Amino acid sequence: MRLVQLDDIYEPIWRDLQEIEQELKAVIDVDIPILLQLLDYVLESSGKRIRPAITLFAGKFYYYDLDLLVPAAAAVELLHTATLVHDDIVDDSAQRHSKTTINYLRGKTSAVLLGDYLLGRAAHLATATENIRVLRLFSRAAMTISSGELMHSISSYDLEQARKNYFHWISAKTACLFSTAAESGATLSQAPEEAIQSLQNYGYNLGMAFQVVDDVLDLTGEEAELGKPLGSDLSQGILTLPIILFLERYPGDVVIKKALGGNDAADIKSAIDRICQSFAIEDCLDIASDFCQQACQALQNLPCQSLQSRMIDLAHYVIQRRR
Amino acid sequence: MRLVQLDDIYEPIWRDLQEIEQELKAVIDVDIPILLQLLDYVLESSGKRIRPAITLFAGKFYYYDLDLLVPAAAAVELLHTATLVHDDIVDDSAQRHSKTTINYLRGKTSAVLLGDYLLGRAAHLATATENIRVLRLFSRAAMTISSGELMHSISSYDLEQARKNYFHWISAKTACLFSTAAESGATLSQAPEEAIQSLQNYGYNLGMAFQVVDDVLDLTGEEAELGKPLGSDLSQGILTLPIILFLERYPGDVVIKKALGGNDAADIKSAIDRICQSFAIEDCLDIASDFCQQACQALQNLPCQSLQSRMIDLAHYVIQRRR
Repeated sequence: MRLVQLDDIYEPIWRDLQEIEQELKAVIDVDIPILLQLLDYVLESSGKRIRPAITLFAGKFYYYDLDLLVPAAAAVELLHTATLVHDDIVDDSAQRHSKTTINYLRGKTSAVLLGDYLLGRAAHLATATENIRVLRLFSRAAMTISSGELMHSISSYDLEQARKNYFHWISAKTACLFSTAAESGATLSQAPEEAIQSLQNYGYNLGMAFQVVDDVLDLTGEEAELGKPLGSDLSQGILTLPIILFLERYPGDVVIKKALGGNDAADIKSAIDRICQSFAIEDCLDIASDFCQQACQALQNLPCQSLQSRMIDLAHYVIQRRR
Repeated sequence: MRLVQLDDIYEPIWRDLQEIEQELKAVIDVDIPILLQLLDYVLESSGKRIRPAITLFAGKFYYYDLDLLVPAAAAVELLHTATLVHDDIVDDSAQRHSKTTINYLRGKTSAVLLGDYLLGRAAHLATATENIRVLRLFSRAAMTISSGELMHSISSYDLEQARKNYFHWISAKTACLFSTAAESGATLSQAPEEAIQSLQNYGYNLGMAFQVVDDVLDLTGEEAELGKPLGSDLSQGILTLPIILFLERYPGDVVIKKALGGNDAADIKSAIDRICQSFAIEDCLDIASDFCQQACQALQNLPCQSLQSRMIDLAHYVIQRRR
């Protein structure tokens, strides 16, 4: 597997990604000072913009219409940002992307209302596509993400069901928006139905791979690169894939049990070490690779070879990334 | 001013309101048990359904297309419900419509996610209209409501600005959705632009009247009818119109100052009595009547006299209601 850089992968869409940045900057430009401040804080460019990039790539195989793709891609990013702002209330997280969360910085009132504003603004931007199918995809994604999180929020500790629950959860919270990003781009480029399905499939599997890797990085990453404390899933008692695979093999492991949902930094450090030195990380990356492979296979019957190759590189990047 | 009953006013749209109830029941019917439970709890029919009724009335002057109006009206009600669920987090309210709020019953996680689901579901229902203008109105309303609440959440005690801030706030939090309800109905009935504007104007002014009366009822109403404790605005330190009018005349009043934002039941009771025995309630109702009159005047050039007369009755009901 060759090493790839995001800048190289984005080369064919680089200029158009700048238009999306402009669109996001325009979102910040509101005449309510408190709202402007909050929007500026959460939309400040630092993300990888993978979801908007997927919309652009998916929109490039047929009729590439930037006037429609730019608002759609910016709307995907806004919807994503809205869910992060609300997630930080739900998870009571203090840090994200190396910054204090709105919930911690300004309190739950600002976080609830800013998230709602972003949801409305995403929906409003999406109407610029004047495409009802795309608008249905967006609203459906908002429903899937929130209902998936709700289901997850009440799931009890049950190792038998954990793996199934996990895949269902990440499919709702991450893969759904990746797939929406791809399907919207394809739909707006007037792709034939079969091609739309292929690209939707690519987005979905890429999203699944992305989240599995995210959950691995929560244990194996560098705090400085991740922008949040390591083992935050462990300390919140959230069963992610590496933890599940480990517990499936060692269901009575006291080190992990002690760390799960606990506050003690030494306990968490021990549990991280234990999982990282086990088979679990490699097994997770194998599973992520399988999703990545399925994403790449979905592209096979699409017309443009060079575009396919960039999207395959993007899938590999998702597996190799360190943040 | 003659006394009117909601049942009589709704007579021409009664059967169609039942279709909206069916549409809302269908919203509850999801296959995620926790979500079904929460939706059932917040959507259980007990409300006056004034917003959906406005959509139906506004849609009746020209081409009355129920297939479009029912989803639009149900979407208005869902958007309204979503904002209430999130408002109860923001205001930390324990009770609404005689029921414990989701925030108190199930915690902030459920309240945040349920509200998000309802926003998504409202947007999805609205796509059934296949009308981009209506979808823009809905997303714009979501933006206006949240940004208005955000602005209000940081406004400091400033009696000079209080009245202006109040009208801006209620215009965003209430009148905007009433006006969206009316404009959507009119748009979907293919009304000419001038008629759409008239109906939008009706909705807006009716919403302003509705909120002023709501704020009066928070002081003059019966707890059993309101379904929440009296003086809840006072105890939360929220400056509503009756309180503002009173303080404009008696800026140093110690009874009111002591009650504002306080927890002492006796203090709040004294402040309520003081305002209720003053000119302030009547002055507020005069202001509400002015909005009501503007709403009625907006209907003047519309075609159907009997429909106009029901909508005028609805405006009078809004002023006279006790809950």
